[in-house]
Amino acid sequence: MTTKPIPAPAKKRTSIGSRRNPEAEAAVLAAAKDLISEKGYAGFSVDEVARRAGAGKTTIYRWYPTKADLFIAIYTAERSTFVPVPDTGNLVEELVQYTTSLWRFWESHPAGAALRGLIAEAQGTPEALSALRDRFLPDRTADVRRMLSGGAARGELQAAEVDDKVALWVGFSWFKLLVGELHDEGVIKSVMMQIAEVRRDS
Amino acid sequence: MTTKPIPAPAKKRTSIGSRRNPEAEAAVLAAAKDLISEKGYAGFSVDEVARRAGAGKTTIYRWYPTKADLFIAIYTAERSTFVPVPDTGNLVEELVQYTTSLWRFWESHPAGAALRGLIAEAQGTPEALSALRDRFLPDRTADVRRMLSGGAARGELQAAEVDDKVALWVGFSWFKLLVGELHDEGVIKSVMMQIAEVRRDS
Repeated sequence: MTTKPIPAPAKKRTSIGSRRNPEAEAAVLAAAKDLISEKGYAGFSVDEVARRAGAGKTTIYRWYPTKADLFIAIYTAERSTFVPVPDTGNLVEELVQYTTSLWRFWESHPAGAALRGLIAEAQGTPEALSALRDRFLPDRTADVRRMLSGGAARGELQAAEVDDKVALWVGFSWFKLLVGELHDEGVIKSVMMQIAEVRRDS
Repeated sequence: MTTKPIPAPAKKRTSIGSRRNPEAEAAVLAAAKDLISEKGYAGFSVDEVARRAGAGKTTIYRWYPTKADLFIAIYTAERSTFVPVPDTGNLVEELVQYTTSLWRFWESHPAGAALRGLIAEAQGTPEALSALRDRFLPDRTADVRRMLSGGAARGELQAAEVDDKVALWVGFSWFKLLVGELHDEGVIKSVMMQIAEVRRDS
């Protein structure tokens, strides 16, 4: 809360430029989380976020130039709390634990709906596509890449295979998210065994 | 072309029920193809399809109750012509040929944009999600399933692994479509080797 007098409407807040008010920012993010959880991608609009947060649309666009930026902010805000990165020294075990945590996180937090929204939005605008591919993905696949590289260092797979396996892992997890089958945890183990190239009979 | 007199505006065409006029239907599909190619998912609307095709919105909705139905129709109309199903008796070879044809088809025909639209739309409405998962997917993964089952029959993999491998294949191909990396054909071979569980050094 500030004790400064409220600026006269004529001047508005153009003078503060892109400096963010943390309280207003939290309100915007909370409203965006609620809205994507309640209404999903089809019912998500910056207008409605602004209305619920009591914020100006211009302000929101200054902080989050596109819907994709807002979806990434929703996702990132909660992610690290709920998806621990296992380090057991066994690649299949690590991939299974991690994928299970991630799918549960997607199912039970606004992040899942936000990621579905981000992917959908990326099919509509080049800006969103670039945000997804060039900004979101490298960050969000770093953990899996680290686990796979660890496996390669232990000789469980070849280092040259890591990129392909990251793509297989992301593709599989997105596929289950996008067709609404994250509850189908039973498939995780056998698919992770295939990604890690552990034969069923071995 | 019909030689019947044009019905008076007051009666319109309500009496023909859901019977389709093939010429009008072709015009709608052609307009939908052009529009998704030109404007992508974000610029696609039934209003604009109706305007371009000179058709009524009500008629279009009668034929294609949702945008998802229209995307599936665009996709299906061209698919069989451009994606041959190889039968060489070598699983990796078959998967590589098929995936390469499919990616090229997605890149160079309205079908690719239509599939991106269908997946995006499925993130917004339960009807579109069901159309994608329950109607589109089983049809569109039948070829890959057949190739993998053929490999299993020849002893190249275990029959119990086919479902997981279909999911890995779909996930990987969708992922490349959704991030706009279909031109990246160089990755196909090594990823198909991993899906088929052929080790690089074997």
